[in-house]
Amino acid sequence: MAHATNGGKRLRGFLVLESARLHHIPALQAVWPATAIEALHAYSLVHDDLPCMDDDDMRRGQPTVHKRWDEATAVLAGDALQTLAFELVCRPEASADAGVRSALALSLAQASGAKGMVLGQALDMAAETAGAPLGLEEITALQRGKTGALIEWSATAGARMAGADTGPLETYARALGLAFQIADDLLDVTGDSATVGKAVGKDAAAGKATFVSLLGVEAARARAQALVDEACDSLAGYGTAADDLKDTARFVVTRAH
Amino acid sequence: MAHATNGGKRLRGFLVLESARLHHIPALQAVWPATAIEALHAYSLVHDDLPCMDDDDMRRGQPTVHKRWDEATAVLAGDALQTLAFELVCRPEASADAGVRSALALSLAQASGAKGMVLGQALDMAAETAGAPLGLEEITALQRGKTGALIEWSATAGARMAGADTGPLETYARALGLAFQIADDLLDVTGDSATVGKAVGKDAAAGKATFVSLLGVEAARARAQALVDEACDSLAGYGTAADDLKDTARFVVTRAH
Repeated sequence: MAHATNGGKRLRGFLVLESARLHHIPALQAVWPATAIEALHAYSLVHDDLPCMDDDDMRRGQPTVHKRWDEATAVLAGDALQTLAFELVCRPEASADAGVRSALALSLAQASGAKGMVLGQALDMAAETAGAPLGLEEITALQRGKTGALIEWSATAGARMAGADTGPLETYARALGLAFQIADDLLDVTGDSATVGKAVGKDAAAGKATFVSLLGVEAARARAQALVDEACDSLAGYGTAADDLKDTARFVVTRAH
Repeated sequence: MAHATNGGKRLRGFLVLESARLHHIPALQAVWPATAIEALHAYSLVHDDLPCMDDDDMRRGQPTVHKRWDEATAVLAGDALQTLAFELVCRPEASADAGVRSALALSLAQASGAKGMVLGQALDMAAETAGAPLGLEEITALQRGKTGALIEWSATAGARMAGADTGPLETYARALGLAFQIADDLLDVTGDSATVGKAVGKDAAAGKATFVSLLGVEAARARAQALVDEACDSLAGYGTAADDLKDTARFVVTRAH
């Protein structure tokens, strides 16, 4: 089932659907926040790829939005995708309970805003012009915002929709998010751009500190594996119903793209 | 009281507060959606001022965000301001009723997204490279998205919070929004940049069709005045409680900045 995440590309939406299934939320409801988080993630990619940000020409094996059209279109498309994410979680189809809809929207805003994803991205930009490379603690804080916050929102969405305890899925998501980032750093060093679907080797070329540059390839692999074990253990209470989420965690560190 | 809008600069937040007062919503609640709409409007200005969009160096008499800092900061600051807007309307302080919070968030998304403000901005960008200048109908559709949708959301927010009929305030807002845009076009022709706080004469220099280029200065003034009368008439049912909103409509067409 881990293949349903399509190499990590639809990881966030998949986590929403799986956490909803664990909590007996109908898929016809869960698909709304799942689509929302994919729209929000897509907005962040379109803006991150801009020339004034990461300046990337390729994404998912295709020209980036500003390459295919132009920068103004990329700014506006990203803006509209962010708006769409909030529209989708607030649609009555997402839940008959307005308390759930506003909780999804509030938590999504907190995960993606100036104390979440945008903070992570800003820290990442600042790191590029900093005098010294970041240390392990700083990289971890950066990752927690840049990719961790949305992964956590996604993995806990089903529990939130059911009014259930989000604790076990939070633990799962934090370990998974960190493992995912380490795997991404490993791919930047060991992958090739045709398979990965975007440029590789950029971090090393820019002299950026990553989990791999700080730990080395072997220790980074071991750390990712330990995090996967932690992620799987946290779901023990769900029994075999959480097997797909465990498979996803295992897949994340073995993926080639 | 119209001066509270500070030359139209805080018009949207002011409309939220006034429409809330009309419907007996406490100011301590209304200030949340009022701040939200100012954050959302600010995001749109920061992104619109980018070099790839309108390329403006000055805004509200100060250097624009990308001039003062850089383009990446402007993209991220705009992104975070949009997120903040959705956080603010979903905060429990905005309303004890989750139905109100999710309705505010959903309507805000619909007003500001790909069928609202972003559509208006995209039409505006497209007009710049179009073969022929736009006609009056096309300019009106463009304005309805670019500035009209958020003004309408603001003016109806109080009624929405109270679960009251939004009809009269919708009529008011549509007339006000159009009058506001005509006044803005007039300022671009007749204002000076020191008073207006941003560059003027840009539309004419770019050969862009505006209400003024299509109607002429005098007819544009008359149209704006007729719209103000229509806006005021629509509020008759509220009696003198709506005097501040009527003053605001009158002020919008006489403002110098």
